[in-house]
Amino acid sequence: MSYLQRAANIMNRIDTLAAISEDAKGITRTFGTPAFIAGSEQVMHWMQEAGLDTHIDNIGNVRGRWKTGASSTLVIASHIDTVINAGKFDGPLGVLMAIDIVQALKGTTIPFNIEVIAFSDEEGVRFHTTYLGSKTVTGAFDNSLLDKKDHNGTTLKEAIESMGKDVSRLPDDVIHDWQGYFEIHIEQGPVLYDSNIPIAVVTAIAGQKRLSVTFKGMAGHAGTVPMDSRQDALCGAAAFILAVEEYAVTHKIVATVGYLQVSNAASNVIPGEVTCSLDIRSADIATLDIAGIALQKAAADICEQRQLHLEWQLIQASKPVACDRVMSGLLKHAITGSGYETVQLVSGAGHDAVPVSAVSPVCMLFVKCYKGISHHPSEKVDVEDIAAALKVSDQFMLNLIHY
Amino acid sequence: MSYLQRAANIMNRIDTLAAISEDAKGITRTFGTPAFIAGSEQVMHWMQEAGLDTHIDNIGNVRGRWKTGASSTLVIASHIDTVINAGKFDGPLGVLMAIDIVQALKGTTIPFNIEVIAFSDEEGVRFHTTYLGSKTVTGAFDNSLLDKKDHNGTTLKEAIESMGKDVSRLPDDVIHDWQGYFEIHIEQGPVLYDSNIPIAVVTAIAGQKRLSVTFKGMAGHAGTVPMDSRQDALCGAAAFILAVEEYAVTHKIVATVGYLQVSNAASNVIPGEVTCSLDIRSADIATLDIAGIALQKAAADICEQRQLHLEWQLIQASKPVACDRVMSGLLKHAITGSGYETVQLVSGAGHDAVPVSAVSPVCMLFVKCYKGISHHPSEKVDVEDIAAALKVSDQFMLNLIHY
Repeated sequence: MSYLQRAANIMNRIDTLAAISEDAKGITRTFGTPAFIAGSEQVMHWMQEAGLDTHIDNIGNVRGRWKTGASSTLVIASHIDTVINAGKFDGPLGVLMAIDIVQALKGTTIPFNIEVIAFSDEEGVRFHTTYLGSKTVTGAFDNSLLDKKDHNGTTLKEAIESMGKDVSRLPDDVIHDWQGYFEIHIEQGPVLYDSNIPIAVVTAIAGQKRLSVTFKGMAGHAGTVPMDSRQDALCGAAAFILAVEEYAVTHKIVATVGYLQVSNAASNVIPGEVTCSLDIRSADIATLDIAGIALQKAAADICEQRQLHLEWQLIQASKPVACDRVMSGLLKHAITGSGYETVQLVSGAGHDAVPVSAVSPVCMLFVKCYKGISHHPSEKVDVEDIAAALKVSDQFMLNLIHY
Repeated sequence: MSYLQRAANIMNRIDTLAAISEDAKGITRTFGTPAFIAGSEQVMHWMQEAGLDTHIDNIGNVRGRWKTGASSTLVIASHIDTVINAGKFDGPLGVLMAIDIVQALKGTTIPFNIEVIAFSDEEGVRFHTTYLGSKTVTGAFDNSLLDKKDHNGTTLKEAIESMGKDVSRLPDDVIHDWQGYFEIHIEQGPVLYDSNIPIAVVTAIAGQKRLSVTFKGMAGHAGTVPMDSRQDALCGAAAFILAVEEYAVTHKIVATVGYLQVSNAASNVIPGEVTCSLDIRSADIATLDIAGIALQKAAADICEQRQLHLEWQLIQASKPVACDRVMSGLLKHAITGSGYETVQLVSGAGHDAVPVSAVSPVCMLFVKCYKGISHHPSEKVDVEDIAAALKVSDQFMLNLIHY
C-alpha cells in the first residue's frame, strides 16, 4: 500500500473516532465517560486487527503489545481523551499512526518488544490533573489523585471502578523494561504551516511557569479624579502586559497574559484591582527561571512607579524535558533520508513524553497542522502530511531496529 | 444658630435619611421603591417644618415652594435617589442644605419665588436613564421613557402609577419662570481634599463620550505560537490603555478604560478578542471631539501595527455645560467674602444642573469630601465643611437677592 493510501486509511479512522463523542455536535471524550469507553473499544479493535495482544489497563489505557521475546520494550503512544469541543487530531493521530506503523513492520525481526498505547487522560479535563495514563505506566501515579473529584463530585477512584477496573492493581500496569518512547503529535503551532514543511523533530518540551499577578490601586470616579491623582490598576496591568511581550520577544521565549479580570469593572469607574495570569515557557531551565525573576522585577517596578501594590503568586511550574539525542538523531536521519527538510522545534505544549522522560529516552515527531490551530473543531491535518510522517516513521523504525 | 450648629442639624438629617434604605445593611434608595417613598415623605416633612408649600409631583420629585408673588423662581435642588450601596451625602447633602438655607432666609424680602426640589431620579439606577426628575421640571421628559423596564419587567409608567401619580399630568410639573438654579453637591473628586479647602465653585460640567472598543486578533496556544506569529488582542488593548492614559495627561482631560473583557480567557490561550470601554470627559466640546478622533486614530494605528481588527462604537455622548457667569460670579464673591480661597473646578460627574442648563442659568457649589470617594459607603463630609458651605451659601443668596 502507498503512504498516501495508508494515510487515507488513518484519516478514515480519525473520522470514525471523532464521531464517538459525549455530545452530538462537537468532539468531546473525557476520561471514563461512555463515549470515552466506546472510543477505547474502537481503538482496541484496530489494535487487534493489527495483530497486537490487547487489553485495557486499570487507568483505562488501551495497550497493544507485540511480544518479540526481547528484554526491552519500545513504546509508541499518544492519547485518545480530548478537551471539550476538541479537534480530531490532537492525540488520536499519534495513536492511529502508531498502530499503522507497527502493522507495516509485520514480518520484520525486531530486537525489542513494541507496545502501542492509547493513553486515557493527557488533557486532564475531567479531574483537573494531566497525564493520568502515562503517569500510571511510568510508575509516577500518586494514589492521592484517587480522591480528586469531577464537577459532579465523582472521585477518580469511583470513575475507575465504574469502568470495571481495580485501583489496587494500578502498580501492575507499570512498564519496567523501557527501550525508548516515540510519540507522533500535531504541532499545535504555526511554524510548519508557515514554512510549509510536513514534519519536524522535537528537541525538547518546554518547561512552564504559570503565575497569578494582581495589581491593587485605588478605585475612583472616572469623571472626577484627575489623571495625576490616579492609581489605576488596569494601566499598571497594561504596562506589565507590554513588558511581558517585549521581554519574550527579546529573550526568544514565549510568555502570555491570557486571563485578565478587572474587579467591579464599570465604564465610569477607575479600576482599583486587576488580576491576570502569566504563562512563561522555555526549553531551558535557566532561561525560564531568569524570565520569572525578570518579569517579577518588571511588575514591581511598574507598581512602584504607579503607587500600586503587587501580588505575585506561582501557581504551577514544570521543568523542561530534553528529547533523547540518540533517538532524535535517528529521527532526523529518517527525515533527511526521506527527502524532507529537517526542522527542529521545541514543543511549547506538554505531552505524555514529559512523564515518560523520567524513566525512558523519549523522542517526538510533529506533524504540520492548519494554521497551528488546536483544541478547536477547525483543527486540520492534510493527508499528504500524514503520508510524509508515515514515510519518516517507517524509516525511523528501521533506523532504530538496526542501530 | 451658629453655622456649626446648623451643619450639625443637617448631619443629623443626613443620618436619618440614610437609615431609610431598601436593605438593612447599606444605603440604597432607587426610584419608586418603598424606601424611596418613605425617604421622600421624610424630606417633605422637613420642608414643611421650614414653612414651605409642599407636594410630590408626578415624577416623584419632592417640591417645597416659598411663594413671594414674584414673577420668577429660583430653584435650589439636588436629588435623594441613590446608587446601590451608596454613600450618605451624594444628593441628600444638597437637598438638606437647600432646606436649611431657605429656612434661614425667613423674614427677608426676596425678589423671586424660591423652590426647593428633591429630585426623584438622578442616578438612573432602576430604569437605566438618568435625570428623570430634573428632565420633568424642565419640560425635557420624553414620553417614550415610560416604556422603559426595570430588571423585574416593571415599566416606568407602572412605577409612577404605583406611587399614585398620573403620567398624563407630567407636563403640569414643568417650571416655566426660571430665575436661576443653584445646586450644592459633594465634589466626588480629590481636589478639595488634597488641597484641604472646604468648597469650590463649579465653572462647567464636563461633556462625555462613552465608547466600546473591540480588538480582534487570533486566539492560539500560549505554548506553541511563537511571539512573532501572534495577533494578541490583549497586547493591543494594553497598548491602547497606555495611549489613552498618555493622551489624557498630555491634553489635560480625563480618560478612562474602566471595563475590559477577554473573550474565552484562559491562562494558556493567547487572547483572540478583547472588548473594553473608553470614557472621555472635558469641559470643552472641541477638546472632547478632538480627543475622540485622536484616540480612535491611536487605536487604529495599534491595530494596523499588530494586525488586529478594530471595532469602535460610540455608546453615549453628552455636551459640556457651562455654568452661568453671573451666578457663578456672585458665588465666587460669596466665597471670597466669607474668607475662603476660591477654587474653580470642572465637574467630571454629571448633575441635575445639566438638564436644567437647557432652560435656566445654573450654578453649583462643591463641598469637600473624604479622599474624593463617592458612590461608596465610605463617602464622608466633615461637619466643618458643611458649615463653611452654609456660610458661603447664605452670602450667595444675599448677593443674588441684592443683584
